[in-house]
Amino acid sequence: MKNEVFYGEGMKVVKEKYPDLYEVIVKLNDVAYTGKVLDYKTQKLIAIAIVAAKCDEIATKKQMISGIKELGITKEEIIDALKVVLLTSGMPAFTKAMRILNEIEKEL
Amino acid sequence: MKNEVFYGEGMKVVKEKYPDLYEVIVKLNDVAYTGKVLDYKTQKLIAIAIVAAKCDEIATKKQMISGIKELGITKEEIIDALKVVLLTSGMPAFTKAMRILNEIEKEL
Amino acid sequence: MKNEVFYGEGMKVVKEKYPDLYEVIVKLNDVAYTGKVLDYKTQKLIAIAIVAAKCDEIATKKQMISGIKELGITKEEIIDALKVVLLTSGMPAFTKAMRILNEIEKEL
Amino acid sequence: MKNEVFYGEGMKVVKEKYPDLYEVIVKLNDVAYTGKVLDYKTQKLIAIAIVAAKCDEIATKKQMISGIKELGITKEEIIDALKVVLLTSGMPAFTKAMRILNEIEKEL
Amino acid sequence: MKNEVFYGEGMKVVKEKYPDLYEVIVKLNDVAYTGKVLDYKTQKLIAIAIVAAKCDEIATKKQMISGIKELGITKEEIIDALKVVLLTSGMPAFTKAMRILNEIEKEL
Amino acid sequence: MKNEVFYGEGMKVVKEKYPDLYEVIVKLNDVAYTGKVLDYKTQKLIAIAIVAAKCDEIATKKQMISGIKELGITKEEIIDALKVVLLTSGMPAFTKAMRILNEIEKEL
Repeated sequence: MKNEVFYGEGMKVVKEKYPDLYEVIVKLNDVAYTGKVLDYKTQKLIAIAIVAAKCDEIATKKQMISGIKELGITKEEIIDALKVVLLTSGMPAFTKAMRILNEIEKEL
Repeated sequence: MKNEVFYGEGMKVVKEKYPDLYEVIVKLNDVAYTGKVLDYKTQKLIAIAIVAAKCDEIATKKQMISGIKELGITKEEIIDALKVVLLTSGMPAFTKAMRILNEIEKEL
Repeated sequence: MKNEVFYGEGMKVVKEKYPDLYEVIVKLNDVAYTGKVLDYKTQKLIAIAIVAAKCDEIATKKQMISGIKELGITKEEIIDALKVVLLTSGMPAFTKAMRILNEIEKEL
Repeated sequence: MKNEVFYGEGMKVVKEKYPDLYEVIVKLNDVAYTGKVLDYKTQKLIAIAIVAAKCDEIATKKQMISGIKELGITKEEIIDALKVVLLTSGMPAFTKAMRILNEIEKEL
Repeated sequence: MKNEVFYGEGMKVVKEKYPDLYEVIVKLNDVAYTGKVLDYKTQKLIAIAIVAAKCDEIATKKQMISGIKELGITKEEIIDALKVVLLTSGMPAFTKAMRILNEIEKEL
Repeated sequence: MKNEVFYGEGMKVVKEKYPDLYEVIVKLNDVAYTGKVLDYKTQKLIAIAIVAAKCDEIATKKQMISGIKELGITKEEIIDALKVVLLTSGMPAFTKAMRILNEIEKEL
């Protein structure tokens, strides 16, 4: 699961033409998401919150879908994380993430 | 604990001169940090990660100290959260947060 | 007007499932937009400028539409605000906001 | 006033060694801060809010001091602007700006 | 080439209604992109990297297309620049820019 | 040179307690800064510009010093890079970076 590094279209080029870079990205991903004390799910919630706080629409969607599908993260857990986004990053970041979460729910 | 809203010097003015605003901030803080499913500690780790991802030195320090002192969050837990910062926000955000964490450790 | 808190699809869930959170958000919105000395229109121009400075396309559009429709803010006023965005945040933020403003004009 | 472009130490080099660049910066500053409909004071409040929303400590301090000293902007006006920062950008940006405003007040 | 300042729809209004502003923007663009020591191509790569680091989708696409078409910047050069984006700004910024680069390649 | 990964105090802990993470960071740094077509110096100028565009004071200083000392990057080259920062990210980012550059010059 953690090893699965699917970053979409753009990463195919990296895999084919820049194998060294691809390898180190996979490794970084693997090492970062292997918490010494935190489990993967908590780290994933942190990732969702960070990209939501940055108002990054595409990354937020991708991280939420991956968290829900692969790790069984619930909508309630994501909303609790997004409440911290509201506090630390304001309304636009929060409402955008809430809308994305809703759209995902309809798609899944 | 959650109710304690000490945002430093600047908030004193808000409390005295803008009691309505102060009250709603306290309430927002309280509601946001009362997770439906996530515990306060997990939400605090999320807050630490978000402000670290934004390279906000002062907020990072404040959130880390509050997390360590009030909630017993460990250095290992923070580092696992910062590994997600590294992945999502790059080296400068990560190394800055690691330095702050180290400085805090010496002070505490 | 100020009380109207319509943040789109995502906020419906908040209203239904997280009434405490919804209530405090409405209150915060109300308190924040009740200036002691500045009028609502000036605060709205500030909101437009902030989200434009952050290159947040959706929030910029929403704030501009709300400002124009509800408060009668003119295109000239918005452009004067965006000139400050240009100075403080650079060309990409400015040109993006100018394009959004133009698109809105055609729609309205 | 608007023509005065004093951006501190760094700009001295620009003035001496890059006169073309310096000239266009002065001109840009002048044109941007000559609103068609908004007055300079409103534009300055917008500038203060934008740099505060970005958590830029030094720029926030500089803009506040310039606004207070040169244009007679009051603490109340700045706080009304910062309330929009709170809504759009979250607590850390707001509390940081409130602290800076307080520090300035003591210095002036 | 450097003089060509085509910032899309939004800038037409500026050109027609705010000729002073338009003129200073053209001049700023010209002066900024006339390096004392760096060539235009290197500056363009820097521009691509900056907007990619900020996750600004539209600006990234615009800068990449302009760099490839007008200056003959190669995909390999852009990827080398994006590797710095990966280091300094994390995976979401990098993968987004890589995807945009791929989409552009298919369009051109 | 490229292999030298000295990120200050914070990284010591990573090296000692998180050797896996340290190793992958060193490797990432090495791979990213080994351009297929761009030389290290150009990549370093890109790194300087990115962190300056983000108004990250400490990272900007660190990258500038490293670029000047290790790679012989000149003040003129950095200023040409910062002119792109001015265009894409506005005055506060530019003037801050110019001030840092001046301070470094006096220290070296």
